[in-house]
Amino acid sequence: MFTVIASEGRARRGVFDTPHGAVQTPVFMNVGTQAAIKGALSAADLEMIGCQVELSNTYHLHVRPGEETVRALGGLHRFMTWNRPILTDSGGFQIFSLAKPRDITEEGVKFVSHVDGRKIFMRPEDSMRIQSALGSDIAMAFDECVKIPSPYDYVKASTERTVRWLERCKAEMEKISSEGSAVNPGQMLFGINQGAVYKDLRIEHMKRIAEFDLPGYAIGGLAVGETTAEMYDTIEALDEYMPKDKPRYLMGVGTPSNIIEGVWRGVDFFDCVMPARNGRHGHLFTWNGIININNEKYVRDESPIDPECDCPVCRRYTRGYLRHLYRSGELLALRLGVMHNLWFYNKLAERIREAIETHTFSAFRAEHTETLAKRI
Amino acid sequence: MFTVIASEGRARRGVFDTPHGAVQTPVFMNVGTQAAIKGALSAADLEMIGCQVELSNTYHLHVRPGEETVRALGGLHRFMTWNRPILTDSGGFQIFSLAKPRDITEEGVKFVSHVDGRKIFMRPEDSMRIQSALGSDIAMAFDECVKIPSPYDYVKASTERTVRWLERCKAEMEKISSEGSAVNPGQMLFGINQGAVYKDLRIEHMKRIAEFDLPGYAIGGLAVGETTAEMYDTIEALDEYMPKDKPRYLMGVGTPSNIIEGVWRGVDFFDCVMPARNGRHGHLFTWNGIININNEKYVRDESPIDPECDCPVCRRYTRGYLRHLYRSGELLALRLGVMHNLWFYNKLAERIREAIETHTFSAFRAEHTETLAKRI
Repeated sequence: MFTVIASEGRARRGVFDTPHGAVQTPVFMNVGTQAAIKGALSAADLEMIGCQVELSNTYHLHVRPGEETVRALGGLHRFMTWNRPILTDSGGFQIFSLAKPRDITEEGVKFVSHVDGRKIFMRPEDSMRIQSALGSDIAMAFDECVKIPSPYDYVKASTERTVRWLERCKAEMEKISSEGSAVNPGQMLFGINQGAVYKDLRIEHMKRIAEFDLPGYAIGGLAVGETTAEMYDTIEALDEYMPKDKPRYLMGVGTPSNIIEGVWRGVDFFDCVMPARNGRHGHLFTWNGIININNEKYVRDESPIDPECDCPVCRRYTRGYLRHLYRSGELLALRLGVMHNLWFYNKLAERIREAIETHTFSAFRAEHTETLAKRI
Repeated sequence: MFTVIASEGRARRGVFDTPHGAVQTPVFMNVGTQAAIKGALSAADLEMIGCQVELSNTYHLHVRPGEETVRALGGLHRFMTWNRPILTDSGGFQIFSLAKPRDITEEGVKFVSHVDGRKIFMRPEDSMRIQSALGSDIAMAFDECVKIPSPYDYVKASTERTVRWLERCKAEMEKISSEGSAVNPGQMLFGINQGAVYKDLRIEHMKRIAEFDLPGYAIGGLAVGETTAEMYDTIEALDEYMPKDKPRYLMGVGTPSNIIEGVWRGVDFFDCVMPARNGRHGHLFTWNGIININNEKYVRDESPIDPECDCPVCRRYTRGYLRHLYRSGELLALRLGVMHNLWFYNKLAERIREAIETHTFSAFRAEHTETLAKRI
C-alpha cells in the first residue's frame, strides 16, 4: 500500500507499507549484494546510519550460499539480522552480463556461475522461487536488461518477452503463495519497465505491465550507457503511463544529483553501489561537493570530512586521521568512508522528503543539484 | 605506580596507574600497529570489547604518517580517538628485521623504509623523541631484538649495548621532559630484557637494567624461534631478578595457553597479533578450542561461534552467516571474526584476574590451558 502524503510538481513524498514496516519515500536503498554491506558495515551500522531498505542480489545469493541455505537459516532477515524491509533484485541484471546472446530463450537464460563455473538455467519461475526462499519484502520481476545501444528490433522483441515473463513471474508467485511455503508470506512483486532509450517501446511496455496492477513499478535498464539527458528524458516520457498510486523505482541510480533529478521527475525508490564504491576509494560526499581524502592537503587537517555532517565518522574523526588510514591501507578506512557516504545518501533522501513536505524542494534542487556533483 | 592486590603462587593481580587511567592486570593489550586495529575495528569497537590498553608501533608511525603529523593532530590519543592507555614499542623489533647486521653500530641502526625505500638512521634518542611526539603512556626502550638462535658472543655484546642504549633512552626522556615539549608529560619508560635463550645473559642483563629503577620491565626477544619450553624456562629463570614491585610485560606473546602459562610464571602484560590474524583467517577462539569457521559443517549452523561467549558477534550472528561472509570474501567477515577474537582475549584476561582474586587460578589453569589450544 502506497500513500502519497505530499507533493511538489511531480515530486512525491510517500509512505509504502511492507511486512517489515513502512518505508518513507523518496528512499535510497542500501546495497548489500551478498547479504552484507561492502566496507565491513554490519546490520547494526545500517540501523545507526538510518537505512530504511536493504537490497540484496538474487543471483549472488543463489550461487553462494544458495537460497535453501538462507531459507534454512530463517530467510534473509534472520540470516543477516536485519529486521527492516529488504528488496531483492531478480538476478536479471547480473545474469545477462554473464550470459551469451544465444543463451537467452523464451523459456529462460543459460549462464555460467562466476564463482564455480557451474552451468545454471534460470527461468522467471526460478527467480521467483529463489526470491521466495530468501524471503525479501519486495521481489523484482525477472527481466532482460538490454545493453544501450541495442538494435530497435532486438529491444522490441525483448520487451515483449519480458511482458510474457512477468505473467509467468506473477503466476509463480501466486502458486508459491498457495503452497504456503513462502518464508515471507507478505512478499510483493514489482514489475520492471524496459525498452532501452526507445521512447515508444518504453511507453508501450509500461502500458502493458501497468495492466498487471502490481504493488510497484521499476524503471530498469538505465545508467547502463546512455547519457544523463537520455535517462531523464526516458523518465519524463514514462511519467503519464506509470500508475500514480504505485511507487516508482529507478534501478541502479545514481549520483546525489541524479537522485534529486529523479525525484523531481516523480521517482520514489533508488539504489546504487556508488556511495559504497566511492567510499572504498576515499571519494567522500559533502554538501559542498566530493572530496578525495587521499589528497596531500588533508594530511594535518583537524576538521571532519564535512562540517555540516553529523554522522558517527564526522562526529569523531579528523580528515588527517582518515587520510592516514587510507594511505596505510587499513580496512578501517573503507569502513569509515563507506559509513560516511551511506549516511550522506540516507540524509540526502531525508532532506528531500522534508523539502517536499514543506514545498521547498524546487529551491532545494536549485541549491544542491550542481554543487553536489562538484569535485572539490 | 604498580600495586599487587592479590596473588596466587607467582601469579599476580595488580593495578598499574597511567596518565590515561588505571590498568587492571594481568592485561592483554590490543595491537593497533598503524594507529588502527586490523579488521576495520574502530576505537569505539575497542571500548565496547573491553580493551584496556592499545599498542601502536613506533616504526610504522614514523614512516607513515610521521610522528610530527601525529603530534600536530594532538598525539596518538586524539589522532585515533582513544582515551585509555596507549603503549608504543620502540621500533626495534621491526627495524632489526629490516636492517642488515653491518648496519647496527654503537650509535644506532641504519635501515630502509618498507614504504618508500627512504634510508633511515635511528638512535635510541630518536626512538624516544618519536614516542614522545606520539604521546603514548608507556614508551619502550630502544633495544636490539636478536634472532634465536644467535651465537653466544653476539648476544652478549648485543645485550651489553642494549644496556648502554637504555641509559641513553632514559637520559633523552629526561631531557625531553625538561624541555617541556612532551605531548604526554606523564609518559613512562619500560626497559626490555634480552639475551636470547642464554639464561646467564638474560639474568645478567636483567640485573643491569633493574638498576635503572624504571616503572616497568619487559621480556623481549621471545616467541621468535625458540621452543615453548625454552620460553617458559627463560621467564622462570628471570623471576627472582625482576623487580617484584614493577609490572612485567612478555612482548608479542601469545596463544591463550601461553598467556595462562605466562601469568602462572608472574607476567602481568601481554600483547599479540594472533587474535586479529587468526580472526582474519576465520580461526576463531572458543572456550572449547579453536574452530575454523570456513569448515563446510557450519554452513547451516544456527548457533553462535561460542555458546559461552557474550560478545556482540555471538549475541547476534550465526555460524552459518559468518561462514557465508568468509566464503564470499566480505570485509564484514574479518571485522566480526577479529571482534570476537579480541573480545575472547580480553575476556580471558578478565577471567584470569578473577581467578587470581579468588585464589582459583591453579584450577583455572588446569581446566583451560590445554583445552584452549585444541583445534576442534
